[in-house]
Amino acid sequence: MTSLTAHPQPVTESGRRLCAIVAGLDGYLADQAAQNDRAGSFAAPSVRRLEEAGLLAACVPAEDGGSGLQSVHDLGVVTARLASADASVATAVYMHLALSAHFARTAAATPGQDTPHRRWTRAIGEHRMIVCSTVTEPGASAWTPTTTAVPDGGGWTVTGQKVMASLSPAATHFYTRLRAETPEGPMIGSVMIPRDLAGVAVHDTWDGLGLRGSGSGTVLFDGVRLPADAVSFRGRWGERPGPGAYAGKVRVAAPLLGVPLGIAEAAHRATLATLTGSGTPGRRRTGSAGTTAALAEMESAIVSARGVLRSLLVDVDAHDPDTHGPALMRACIAAGMVVERAALQVVDLAMQLSGGGSYRAGHPLGRLARDVRAAMFMRPHAPAEEWADALAELALTAPVVNS
Amino acid sequence: MTSLTAHPQPVTESGRRLCAIVAGLDGYLADQAAQNDRAGSFAAPSVRRLEEAGLLAACVPAEDGGSGLQSVHDLGVVTARLASADASVATAVYMHLALSAHFARTAAATPGQDTPHRRWTRAIGEHRMIVCSTVTEPGASAWTPTTTAVPDGGGWTVTGQKVMASLSPAATHFYTRLRAETPEGPMIGSVMIPRDLAGVAVHDTWDGLGLRGSGSGTVLFDGVRLPADAVSFRGRWGERPGPGAYAGKVRVAAPLLGVPLGIAEAAHRATLATLTGSGTPGRRRTGSAGTTAALAEMESAIVSARGVLRSLLVDVDAHDPDTHGPALMRACIAAGMVVERAALQVVDLAMQLSGGGSYRAGHPLGRLARDVRAAMFMRPHAPAEEWADALAELALTAPVVNS
Amino acid sequence: MTSLTAHPQPVTESGRRLCAIVAGLDGYLADQAAQNDRAGSFAAPSVRRLEEAGLLAACVPAEDGGSGLQSVHDLGVVTARLASADASVATAVYMHLALSAHFARTAAATPGQDTPHRRWTRAIGEHRMIVCSTVTEPGASAWTPTTTAVPDGGGWTVTGQKVMASLSPAATHFYTRLRAETPEGPMIGSVMIPRDLAGVAVHDTWDGLGLRGSGSGTVLFDGVRLPADAVSFRGRWGERPGPGAYAGKVRVAAPLLGVPLGIAEAAHRATLATLTGSGTPGRRRTGSAGTTAALAEMESAIVSARGVLRSLLVDVDAHDPDTHGPALMRACIAAGMVVERAALQVVDLAMQLSGGGSYRAGHPLGRLARDVRAAMFMRPHAPAEEWADALAELALTAPVVNS
Amino acid sequence: MTSLTAHPQPVTESGRRLCAIVAGLDGYLADQAAQNDRAGSFAAPSVRRLEEAGLLAACVPAEDGGSGLQSVHDLGVVTARLASADASVATAVYMHLALSAHFARTAAATPGQDTPHRRWTRAIGEHRMIVCSTVTEPGASAWTPTTTAVPDGGGWTVTGQKVMASLSPAATHFYTRLRAETPEGPMIGSVMIPRDLAGVAVHDTWDGLGLRGSGSGTVLFDGVRLPADAVSFRGRWGERPGPGAYAGKVRVAAPLLGVPLGIAEAAHRATLATLTGSGTPGRRRTGSAGTTAALAEMESAIVSARGVLRSLLVDVDAHDPDTHGPALMRACIAAGMVVERAALQVVDLAMQLSGGGSYRAGHPLGRLARDVRAAMFMRPHAPAEEWADALAELALTAPVVNS
Repeated sequence: MTSLTAHPQPVTESGRRLCAIVAGLDGYLADQAAQNDRAGSFAAPSVRRLEEAGLLAACVPAEDGGSGLQSVHDLGVVTARLASADASVATAVYMHLALSAHFARTAAATPGQDTPHRRWTRAIGEHRMIVCSTVTEPGASAWTPTTTAVPDGGGWTVTGQKVMASLSPAATHFYTRLRAETPEGPMIGSVMIPRDLAGVAVHDTWDGLGLRGSGSGTVLFDGVRLPADAVSFRGRWGERPGPGAYAGKVRVAAPLLGVPLGIAEAAHRATLATLTGSGTPGRRRTGSAGTTAALAEMESAIVSARGVLRSLLVDVDAHDPDTHGPALMRACIAAGMVVERAALQVVDLAMQLSGGGSYRAGHPLGRLARDVRAAMFMRPHAPAEEWADALAELALTAPVVNS
Repeated sequence: MTSLTAHPQPVTESGRRLCAIVAGLDGYLADQAAQNDRAGSFAAPSVRRLEEAGLLAACVPAEDGGSGLQSVHDLGVVTARLASADASVATAVYMHLALSAHFARTAAATPGQDTPHRRWTRAIGEHRMIVCSTVTEPGASAWTPTTTAVPDGGGWTVTGQKVMASLSPAATHFYTRLRAETPEGPMIGSVMIPRDLAGVAVHDTWDGLGLRGSGSGTVLFDGVRLPADAVSFRGRWGERPGPGAYAGKVRVAAPLLGVPLGIAEAAHRATLATLTGSGTPGRRRTGSAGTTAALAEMESAIVSARGVLRSLLVDVDAHDPDTHGPALMRACIAAGMVVERAALQVVDLAMQLSGGGSYRAGHPLGRLARDVRAAMFMRPHAPAEEWADALAELALTAPVVNS
Repeated sequence: MTSLTAHPQPVTESGRRLCAIVAGLDGYLADQAAQNDRAGSFAAPSVRRLEEAGLLAACVPAEDGGSGLQSVHDLGVVTARLASADASVATAVYMHLALSAHFARTAAATPGQDTPHRRWTRAIGEHRMIVCSTVTEPGASAWTPTTTAVPDGGGWTVTGQKVMASLSPAATHFYTRLRAETPEGPMIGSVMIPRDLAGVAVHDTWDGLGLRGSGSGTVLFDGVRLPADAVSFRGRWGERPGPGAYAGKVRVAAPLLGVPLGIAEAAHRATLATLTGSGTPGRRRTGSAGTTAALAEMESAIVSARGVLRSLLVDVDAHDPDTHGPALMRACIAAGMVVERAALQVVDLAMQLSGGGSYRAGHPLGRLARDVRAAMFMRPHAPAEEWADALAELALTAPVVNS
Repeated sequence: MTSLTAHPQPVTESGRRLCAIVAGLDGYLADQAAQNDRAGSFAAPSVRRLEEAGLLAACVPAEDGGSGLQSVHDLGVVTARLASADASVATAVYMHLALSAHFARTAAATPGQDTPHRRWTRAIGEHRMIVCSTVTEPGASAWTPTTTAVPDGGGWTVTGQKVMASLSPAATHFYTRLRAETPEGPMIGSVMIPRDLAGVAVHDTWDGLGLRGSGSGTVLFDGVRLPADAVSFRGRWGERPGPGAYAGKVRVAAPLLGVPLGIAEAAHRATLATLTGSGTPGRRRTGSAGTTAALAEMESAIVSARGVLRSLLVDVDAHDPDTHGPALMRACIAAGMVVERAALQVVDLAMQLSGGGSYRAGHPLGRLARDVRAAMFMRPHAPAEEWADALAELALTAPVVNS
């Protein structure tokens, strides 16, 4: 299996084990994906199965009960495999995985200490914790959240509303970005909020046109009380993050590109299977020049997505994001555009090649076409209106390569 | 209002009157569009309103109670206006309009005679007839229908199944293409089948991902009895139609391109309204280069669709399709590709410019994104896999232009 | 000949006469084009022939000895016809034609008066004047020219350098944009500078990779003395022109799009002729899907260029640019992008379809490929880096269309 | 330097040494490139320098005096580095390198034997041999050559004409594909023809619009006498090669994609240098949205070319083409389309970003724009009209990937 003609392959032992877990659940996940899409319901059973199989502890160290996955490459591969079966589940589970990887990295920096991050990875390893990332608020940027923590009798009281909180219906905890009122002025703070606290409410109201099973609803914090040490400070509220934030962004954004790739893989595979008669019955007219040309374009597009994402993931594993932030960020934004556009093209061509039947409700391609577009809005960084500016700035400020 | 910066404008008096009817119902149609899309139900109330307002008699001669619209250009403009409010309704109603235009043209060739075509136009003018075009069958081409008329005691018995029969839930008659068994072998035949005959059944099973209100379900003919003169013969069954069929194809295919244009118009207008604060509340960040560039591309795309469709429609009015078939067919296929692709691009850019909110269920752009893709499969001619072959052949066989 | 499948057609009697002149010289111009491209020499003989045939007086009123062409549409058509034979000549001659049209319009506003503009149109009609537009300076925008007129003993002394001065080797006069030093500060001024004045020098140094016959060299003004009334003032130096300038820009920019269209027409025609065996011998393999698909794409692209340019030119004739400036400007920029990109695509596909031979020196497609790219840099307005900004701004400020 | 933000990097020691050789000659090669392009003359001095530096023995085993490069990946990297300095030289030298790699592989299969292939690699290692691949004939496919070897007194007499013979002015030998007349009928044969034989003539007539320094002229064989064992048989004349030929095609075609990538690298680097003020003086206006968006697109395009070519080259090194022919061929054709298109886009955007100056004769971007297009016609396999057919067929016949 060459890298350009096959699904992405893991490069570590833990990556291979995790891919085997996904492979074992592949049929179940795909069936559930169709049902959840139709009903607009959260993929609770699929998440439970993955949790039971240990996949949610993928990035937790082995000593804490997890798979110890450290390779960003393989996190992207696992995400792509999941997305190929159910992009909603991949999207929902991904943020939990990315956060747990972050916790594991942070805990590893202080070996032997019982830090919060260490406690969290252990809790995940012991199946006691599923984390939902609650960042997005309507109309607010990542550096101007309006969810607020105010000092209150030696602790904090948190109030606010988060949206697009994928995985929230299954979450036991909410890792929340907020505005912390301090004597030095408002700061950006991070807090881990347990679901069972008074004042926490999850509204499973997600009704998107795509990724319908991702549980991307609303989470409300209505006067939730937290202890004094619950808030970690991240910088001044309202201050746009600088290059120092690139390392974290790259680690989160790069493997998430496995979602559009996985969707494209599913569309590509299903279409070839239909055309060759080994898959869902459908159009098999492959003789026309129009069909031939569309097929060739679909091949080019999937090769483009595979080759670029693979190179990006290899790069992130090979170069420490903490020291190569700008170069990796530049690569990540550009690769993201290539992968997203290629994935869109694969799905659109797949529908054209499969004929009108693919546009009936219930046909897998219809779901993939909506999922791939929804995925573009789910990215935690580099939203559509900013990528060009960010990329051009990085291109102009990066040193000119001479060798 | 220049032709490139405004909605398409009618050029005849009857076109203007029909556009005024659509304008008067615009708000109603748009509201219904959202409801029908959500519920997946046929736009019955909208079709009724349009029928009452006389729009279904648009192409019927004034003497028969219609608007006497003859301009192919203006039929395209009316279709675009309808599609801008509700693409499902535009698609459903269009085939009735195109057929009635064909009836009117045929009747006009034998003035004063009481031909079937004349009776049909009169019935439409008198609000007694709504025609559904029943052509498509699963897996069969237009020249190999399997719905069959067999001679039966001096008449015919018709049996078969038609799909994608837009407007069928509201239709009183089904204009049906079938295989007629004759002593000279199987022939392609056309018949008008009244809905109230025994053996006719409409199954409103349409559940597409787009154009959900178009009522594109199934029509069954189970031993329907027709008189001996009911069948008109069109040529040998199984024989691919030659250049002689271009005239009819062009007259049907060209104005139908108003559907993708109308969808693009709606997406374009809604997005500019949102960005300038006069429309649906949503993202108003217009400062970034990414947004600016996307906006400029959206403008280019809509100009492309408008300019090319306008030129095509002017061409069809200016040159008799019966004598300029190949040139018009060539123009029609190429223009169709330009308009469809541009419409897709407008809608995709509109969603990017409007932000993630546009991907929530209920947001108009989500519907437009599905409708514009479904419209590609609704075209009665030049399906996706054939356009390249057909266009290349016409380009190579058409005389080289020297002046 | 439909508008989408044939070369653009004139709509006025004078347009038809001028097209006939071009048609009569077509073979000569095409031969010269090849020679001038090879040698990198100005198309002096072609310009002389066109001058003798009266084409340079196209926009001069009949009473002054010209063809009286007023239609912007037909000016675009004539330009496209010229460009189809030789894009260098079309580019060089175009600015003379656009200026003479401007002179004629201005003179017509004061009928019966012996204004400078009237004298200029008469001089052109009497074959005594060929005008070169000297606007561009390296590194300066149109509103910050550094060529300067300083008051000098009751007159002016002009000093400066202009580049990209197409047609300059044949010009008798230079219509020049400069900075005029006045008691109220620096102003933008326009002056007509006769070539035979002391201090005027033309350096025929043009050595572009495309449009090599356009004579787009350098014009030097070294202390040229002009009378006091020679300078017309246009506004403050350094002030970016506002919407008031749109009318003039549209009138100049719209018909100039005939150049890329004409180049695309030539490439399209030559390729079809080769493939069908009626043209330059070359590749005739039309059986593959790759070829078929490329041919279909070439058809779509030429239809896109034709349909959009035609609609734009009809718009400019139908709506007074002085009162519809913003709408026409918006249409003009967007249409320009569509036409340019489509023309590039036609030429690139033509080369792919024609095979490697088309990339040999001397093959017409090689010249067309360079000419079409050079034409993008020759546009007097909306340079490549500004179109997106200008178009997005117009889209957001234009009133939202509701009907 | 990450793989997506830097020039391609070698992965073997011999690859690194060869890249160092190219780096040492980089300035010389680039200067010569400009001169040869201007004069249309073969890059003889550059080829001589590379020969003296040992680069022409890159793929010759160390024991025979070469660098022993075996990695297909690094052959592609070296080719890209060369092409970045001078695409003409890279194209000319490449076929010699690819042939010498083939000779080395073949000789290695029979260790210790004094085969012709062994003698050839030794001759190359000893600076006694430069091989030109003479395959192309006007109008003939690779399996229907008209150059003929007829049996003649115990040997062969060869007569025919080959075109597009890059490097021919410097070649000492011509590796020639021909039609051998045998008792069993015509066969495809390969022969090595020394230049000093009677009847061999090289006509340095190459006058392309791009790759002007590649010496891609004509080689004539007029009754050249060869010994009986000179001809190796390859199969029946006229028989299209099957999958068995994929291994060889892939080994030749994959690294050659370094040429378009190298051209794109040069254009990308030059443009960023100009925009940031560290390179050729030119336009530095980077503030507009148009510029920003174009810059971002250029980044996406170069990332696409780099990522896909890197993955392809890694694949070819990791999977034996003799056993993974179809998968590698499929990847190779698709990757070729991605890289070529991306390279075209980079160069076109580079010119737009650099402004009109880049279209003057002598500006490096003008040469790169012509070279990148010429390179598309220089590929030994998968010409433009065949890639879609070949790729679609491979996609449909390859086994569907399930894991």
